[in-house]
Amino acid sequence: MRATTLAEEVSLASWTRTITPSAIEEMLLVAARPDILSFALGLPAAELFPTDTFAQAAAHVLATDPRALQYQPPFQPLQAHIVRLMAQRGVFCREEQVFLTAGAQQGINLLTHLLLDPGGQILTEELLYTGFRQTIQPFQPDIWAVSTDLETGMDVDMVEALLADSARPAFIYAVTDAHNPLCVSMSLEKRIRLAALARAYQVPIVEDDPYGFLYYESPSLPPLRAFDDERIFYIGSFSKILAPALRVGWLIVPEDLIPKLAVIKEANDLNTSTFTQRTISAYLDAGHLPGHLVALRHEYRIRRDTMLHALQTYFPPEVRWRKPATGLFIWVELPSMVDACELLQVAIAAEQVAFMPGNAFCVANHRYAAHCMRLNFSNCTPERIEEGIARLARALAGF
Amino acid sequence: MRATTLAEEVSLASWTRTITPSAIEEMLLVAARPDILSFALGLPAAELFPTDTFAQAAAHVLATDPRALQYQPPFQPLQAHIVRLMAQRGVFCREEQVFLTAGAQQGINLLTHLLLDPGGQILTEELLYTGFRQTIQPFQPDIWAVSTDLETGMDVDMVEALLADSARPAFIYAVTDAHNPLCVSMSLEKRIRLAALARAYQVPIVEDDPYGFLYYESPSLPPLRAFDDERIFYIGSFSKILAPALRVGWLIVPEDLIPKLAVIKEANDLNTSTFTQRTISAYLDAGHLPGHLVALRHEYRIRRDTMLHALQTYFPPEVRWRKPATGLFIWVELPSMVDACELLQVAIAAEQVAFMPGNAFCVANHRYAAHCMRLNFSNCTPERIEEGIARLARALAGF
Repeated sequence: MRATTLAEEVSLASWTRTITPSAIEEMLLVAARPDILSFALGLPAAELFPTDTFAQAAAHVLATDPRALQYQPPFQPLQAHIVRLMAQRGVFCREEQVFLTAGAQQGINLLTHLLLDPGGQILTEELLYTGFRQTIQPFQPDIWAVSTDLETGMDVDMVEALLADSARPAFIYAVTDAHNPLCVSMSLEKRIRLAALARAYQVPIVEDDPYGFLYYESPSLPPLRAFDDERIFYIGSFSKILAPALRVGWLIVPEDLIPKLAVIKEANDLNTSTFTQRTISAYLDAGHLPGHLVALRHEYRIRRDTMLHALQTYFPPEVRWRKPATGLFIWVELPSMVDACELLQVAIAAEQVAFMPGNAFCVANHRYAAHCMRLNFSNCTPERIEEGIARLARALAGF
Repeated sequence: MRATTLAEEVSLASWTRTITPSAIEEMLLVAARPDILSFALGLPAAELFPTDTFAQAAAHVLATDPRALQYQPPFQPLQAHIVRLMAQRGVFCREEQVFLTAGAQQGINLLTHLLLDPGGQILTEELLYTGFRQTIQPFQPDIWAVSTDLETGMDVDMVEALLADSARPAFIYAVTDAHNPLCVSMSLEKRIRLAALARAYQVPIVEDDPYGFLYYESPSLPPLRAFDDERIFYIGSFSKILAPALRVGWLIVPEDLIPKLAVIKEANDLNTSTFTQRTISAYLDAGHLPGHLVALRHEYRIRRDTMLHALQTYFPPEVRWRKPATGLFIWVELPSMVDACELLQVAIAAEQVAFMPGNAFCVANHRYAAHCMRLNFSNCTPERIEEGIARLARALAGF
C-alpha cells in the first residue's frame, strides 16, 4: 500500500483530482491483447501503411540531409506541401499560416492553451471526442453543449441562440467531417451559417479535421476554414492518411497568431521531429500520397460496407445505424434498455470483442448515448469484421 | 495592419499577454543563417550523429515490425534499456517507473501540469533554463529563487531556510549536472542534503538531466534521484546523447503517478512516436550507444578545451570563466560595464558571431547576468571555435 500512500502525500495540482483513467488508454491495452477482436479505437489499418515507400523516404533523408536529426525550424517544403493538400479540400492558405504540430491532438492542446482561460467557457456538442475533453479538463471550463443531428450535424440554431443570448465562449469546437463519435458530416448550409456566426460574433472555431480526406462517396465538402480565414482555426493530421507513429500534424491559423503558438509549442516539446517532418516531405515529393489515398479509400469503403452488411445480417431489426460517408466509424443505436457499458463487459468476457460505449464520449452520463456504441471499421480485415459483428450480435442476444 | 487588428479582436487566454518572443526561437533563426557563426544554442554536433547506424536501425524496424507506424502503448524494451542506462548513472529504478516522453522539454511540461496549480509557488534558481520558464509562464506562479554557487551549485542553505520558514512550493526545479546556463555541477554534499530536504519537507524535486552522460573529467556524480526514489522526479533525454530530432526522452517517477501522467500526456499529444521509440530501442539493442558516448565525450572535450584555450588567447584578462566538467556550455563573465545584450548586437552585425546573453536566463533583469554570456562549444568544429572566439574578442575590443 506504500505507493497509494505516496500519491496522497505528494501534493498534486488540484485539477488532477478530476483525472479518471482514460477510456482510450484502457482500450489501447485491451486492443493490444491478442485474444481480443477490437472495434474500439480509431486505429488505421497497419497493413495499409506505405511502409516501403516511407522507408525509402527515411533512408533518402538520412543519407542526404546532414541536419535531418538536428533541432531545426519548421521545414518549409512540408509547409508548402500542406498548402497544396489543403487546396484539395477547398481551403486556400499560405505557407505562413501553416503551423506544424506533433499531430492533431497537440493541435487541439496548443489552441486550447492559446484561447482558453482557467474556468473559461466553451461551446461544443453533447457528444464529443474524448481527447478534446481531456485537453480542456485542467481548465475546468463551463461547457455549453448543443445537440447534434445525425443527418446534418451540429445544432447551429442552438449555437446562434446561445451566442445571441450573450454567450461568449473562448471558442467553439467542431468536427465538421465524420464527427467523432457520431460519424455525421455537417451539411453545407450549416457550414456556411456556422462560419458566418463565428464572424458575426467574433468567436473562433477550432475545426478538428482528422478524417476529411477519407471519404467513400463523393469528396468531402470544404471544411469551415474554406468559408472564413480569420475565425476558423483548422487542425489537420498525417496520422490517419499516412501513419500515426510519425506524430506530425498541422494548424491553419491567422498568420499573426503563429509567434504565440510557437512559444506555446516550444514550452510543450521544443519542436516537431525534424526527421519525420523531412521524411514525410520526401514521401510527398515522390508523389506517393494521391495513390495511397485512393487505396485507403478503396479498402476502407470495403470494410465499411462489410460492417454495414454484417450489422444487417446479424443484428436484430431494433438496432439502428446510418451509413457514414467519411471517417473510420459507424455509430450504432442499441435498444434503449441495453446499457452499452454493461454490454461491453459481456462482449469482452464472453466473445472477446470490444467497442467504445457511447457514454465514453459524454461529459456526464447521457441517456441516449448510454445505449449506443461506436464501431471502428478501419482496423480489421473484412473477414474479422464479419466475425466480430457476429460475435457482438451473440453477446447482445445473450445479454 | 490587418493582422495586428485581428490579434486584438480574437480574445486570447489572459496569460498570453505575457508571451514575449522566445530568445531560443530567435537564436534558432539567427543560427540558421549561413553567414553566422553561432555559439548561442545547445545544439549537439550534427556531424557526430550516428546517422548510419540509426538508418540501419530504422530500416530494420520498418522491415520487421508491422506495428512500427501504428499507435501503440509505450515500448517496453525501450523502458528496459532506460533502466539499464540509469543504472550507469547510479540510479536504480524499475521499468514500471519509466515514463516515455517526446523529449525532456515535454517531461518538464507534463510534471509541471501534474504538480503546479495556477498561481502556485515554485522554488528554483535565479538563473534558469529558458524552456522551464516558458513552461511555468501560463501558470503565473510565485517564484522563490535562490542563488547558485559557481563551484558547488544551488544554494541549499537558502533552500532549507525557505522551507523552514514555511515555504511549500509545488516543487523545486534543479539541473544537478551542468546547470543551464551556469555550467556548474552540484557538489555531492549538496545533492545528499537537497534530497534529504525534499524528503523532510515532502516537497518534490523536478530534476532535469539532459547533460549527465556528457562528462569530460571523471564520470558525473549520481543525480539526486539516486538518493531518493519518492520525491525526486527525474527527467532524461536522448536528444543530447543520440539526436534531438527523435523527440524521445523519459521520466523516472514513483509508479503510482504514471497513470495520471499518462492521462496528461494523452491530452497533450496522444503518445510518443512508436517509430522512433522502436528505432532507438533497435539502435540500443545493437549495442552502439556506449561507443557513441565515448566518441561524443572525446570530441566535445576537444571542443571545450579549444574554446577554453581560445578564450585565454584572445580575451582580455578581466574576462572570467570556469572549466565545465559536464555539458555543452561555458559561462563567461565580461567586465561589469559590458552589457551582454548590446555586445550581442555588435557581435552579430560586425563579426557575424552569436551567443546567449546572460539576461536571457533571468525572470527579471539581473545585474550580474547582464554582463555574462553563455557560449556553446558542441556545435562548431575546433577551427570554427577558434575563429569565433577571435571574432567575439574583436567585437568586445571594439565595444
